[in-house]
Amino acid sequence: MLCFGTLVLKFFREMGKIFHVVSLKHLLLVSIALNVSLILRVINISEKKILHSNSAHVSKNIHLSSSPSSSSLTSFANARIEAQDGEERVINLDHGDPTMYEKYWQQEGDKTTIVIPGWQSLSYFSDVSNICWFLEPEFAKEVVRLHKVVGNAITENHHIVVGTGSTQLFQAALYALSPQDALEPISVVSAAPYYSSYPSITDCLKSGLYKWAGDAHSFKKEGPYIELVTSPNNPDGFVRQSVVNRSEGILVHDLAYYWPQYTSISFPADHDLMLFTVSKSTGHAGMRIGWAIVKDTEVAKKMTKYIELNTIGVSKDSQLRAAKVLKVVSNSCESSSSEGENFFEFSHNQLATRWELLRLAVQKSGQFSVPEFAPQFCTFLGRDFKPQPAFAWLKCEQEEVNDCESFLRSKKILTRSGKHFGFSPKYVRISMLDRDQNYNLFVERLSSIFSS
Amino acid sequence: MLCFGTLVLKFFREMGKIFHVVSLKHLLLVSIALNVSLILRVINISEKKILHSNSAHVSKNIHLSSSPSSSSLTSFANARIEAQDGEERVINLDHGDPTMYEKYWQQEGDKTTIVIPGWQSLSYFSDVSNICWFLEPEFAKEVVRLHKVVGNAITENHHIVVGTGSTQLFQAALYALSPQDALEPISVVSAAPYYSSYPSITDCLKSGLYKWAGDAHSFKKEGPYIELVTSPNNPDGFVRQSVVNRSEGILVHDLAYYWPQYTSISFPADHDLMLFTVSKSTGHAGMRIGWAIVKDTEVAKKMTKYIELNTIGVSKDSQLRAAKVLKVVSNSCESSSSEGENFFEFSHNQLATRWELLRLAVQKSGQFSVPEFAPQFCTFLGRDFKPQPAFAWLKCEQEEVNDCESFLRSKKILTRSGKHFGFSPKYVRISMLDRDQNYNLFVERLSSIFSS
Repeated sequence: MLCFGTLVLKFFREMGKIFHVVSLKHLLLVSIALNVSLILRVINISEKKILHSNSAHVSKNIHLSSSPSSSSLTSFANARIEAQDGEERVINLDHGDPTMYEKYWQQEGDKTTIVIPGWQSLSYFSDVSNICWFLEPEFAKEVVRLHKVVGNAITENHHIVVGTGSTQLFQAALYALSPQDALEPISVVSAAPYYSSYPSITDCLKSGLYKWAGDAHSFKKEGPYIELVTSPNNPDGFVRQSVVNRSEGILVHDLAYYWPQYTSISFPADHDLMLFTVSKSTGHAGMRIGWAIVKDTEVAKKMTKYIELNTIGVSKDSQLRAAKVLKVVSNSCESSSSEGENFFEFSHNQLATRWELLRLAVQKSGQFSVPEFAPQFCTFLGRDFKPQPAFAWLKCEQEEVNDCESFLRSKKILTRSGKHFGFSPKYVRISMLDRDQNYNLFVERLSSIFSS
Repeated sequence: MLCFGTLVLKFFREMGKIFHVVSLKHLLLVSIALNVSLILRVINISEKKILHSNSAHVSKNIHLSSSPSSSSLTSFANARIEAQDGEERVINLDHGDPTMYEKYWQQEGDKTTIVIPGWQSLSYFSDVSNICWFLEPEFAKEVVRLHKVVGNAITENHHIVVGTGSTQLFQAALYALSPQDALEPISVVSAAPYYSSYPSITDCLKSGLYKWAGDAHSFKKEGPYIELVTSPNNPDGFVRQSVVNRSEGILVHDLAYYWPQYTSISFPADHDLMLFTVSKSTGHAGMRIGWAIVKDTEVAKKMTKYIELNTIGVSKDSQLRAAKVLKVVSNSCESSSSEGENFFEFSHNQLATRWELLRLAVQKSGQFSVPEFAPQFCTFLGRDFKPQPAFAWLKCEQEEVNDCESFLRSKKILTRSGKHFGFSPKYVRISMLDRDQNYNLFVERLSSIFSS
């Protein structure tokens, strides 16, 4: 498959040169559209053979819902069953379902297979000597090892708190960091464009402890506040730092995407409270496992207390499975041939190809733009590269299109509108982590959108 | 082990007869104390051989914490590592850790072993055609089958919503049933003694949607309210119905203990919203899997939405494992010899023995009382029996003891005070689901407590 990707890239590059030389622009555009379409169809056919088991992803369409896209997974799920076969099928890239990673794990075979006997893990307790009493020691060990191998976070003298995904840990952090007896809820802010679920998660129970206060750039209220720093950022992929910078600020660093397939690892992060998740690091979203690295002991205790009240701990089965997956990832990084292909090299290359394809499709269409990034040296991969985020933050450049999400929906491409991220609806967020078949159909369709 | 239990019971029964005949009461009490102690020691020795792998449960003591028992699992965890070997060791029965069930699952061998390859369950989605899009179809199927086999709940024309334990589903229910735009939070009530975690879970985030309003018996406020009906009840084991009975009431039925090892199954429950959990049905608390059976489609949708916001779904690994466990349980009920011992018969018998031992210890000591239950016909086991709850609701009958939890703590027995259940501190809740070794040590110690 990567050979096909490389072919497509070469083809695009050659075509790019021709653009400059011959300048028969309109004629060539039509020609390229035809060719890209053909090449991507070839890729699709070869992938259909590989991914025969993944047909559930794009299934039968009855009709395409006319309701606007929301950030709701429920709507996403509904949309998925409304997809249609063939040219007209709906491509749903609204959510960051990391199925791109299936290929690597299939290739690695039985290495990460886990066997759990029926009498295992009956107790609520995993490690009664740990503040986080439901943390499986084997999982904690592999988290520490992986961060050391990758060099993306300091774990020494920090506590590890496991959560049912980093979403639960985000709420545990809010609970732990909010004053318990304040007269009013503490403000929770993040610089726009911010992760679309932050506002709804923060406010869903109308908590008296904390309250969503919007874009950190325009936050002026005096007093204590919590600032969420997502770096690299979801949706736009830029490396970030806090923006409010006042003495009473408490920071939560969401580092879900601080892995070398997405961005250069420049230094081991060493913040007070850092969130990670297997969903974005290894692709195992169905496990629902995340972890927090926490400096302060009292904060770790309160986060543990929240998870105790919320779910009485975290699935042991998934923790044990995650431990095995992280172990195989670390092994793949440390040795060369015997332990299989380096997980991060493999997924880095997949994303590099996808981003090149996307940029070429954007260039060919002429109707869109995506962020430009500066290259940076990665201490893990030992080379410079530009960020290649898990999401594309795409802008509709046509003057007449104010609602990019609706525009793409009319092309049967489902994305998430910029408005959910506290930003302009001229932007949409597009998942870059879907299966090849779907992703390639997407770039093919995007490249063929021309000005009407 | 059951042979030893039966021996002990026979011994007690014989001794009971002697009580009536000879009336040399005080002399006999001393004699029985010695004998019970010896017999239980024999049981302990034989169990130590069986349960060699369970030594983590009661480990080394540095010192016994002097802080009062709380309903916190964190304190429980701390107390566990402070236990001491031998006669003086701490017996921690504060929490209902269902490790009693390990024996059955060890006996059943590989039947419930699950194998999960590394490329499985990467997606967030399980069944996009279901309202609860993160519900594994295999798990849903086995839930329906088990309720049919046991006859304890109607599932036809109901929705199943899976949760990270029934604790998460309880919160999902509060979210789904609370009016979103009311001027004040809806009152949440339950008849005392009520499950000790209800108040803290309900109020932990100071939600503007719902608020704990205490004992349902004394609830007088006009307007809508949510009443939690736990039946059989935690902590006291009695079968319950709603007590407020006003037109604006919304009921949530927590049926975690409505299984034939604990209580007679009199009819298939058919309420609007019913909660169940594997922790108490099969003993797999470490899986963190519960399910709700929900009549109203909109309520099922909102509960799903809460779980999406809270944890973006529920561990697929644990759902798949739970599916296998439920399947083996159903199989064990439907066929006789080839599919192993009937799970419910086995655990029913275990609890029957434990309750008899407890009642005899209470009788021997003369310092305590436990609830008396009337027998009822069980449609599943086909016979009459008295409830044998997962917790003993023990009362200190000594006039001078007002704080039963502290009193038992001085005897190195950790329990949960009645005050956490909205009730008198003369009561404590004691887990009946610990491993044999710990349970037997407990009844031995309890039986030897005499008036000072």
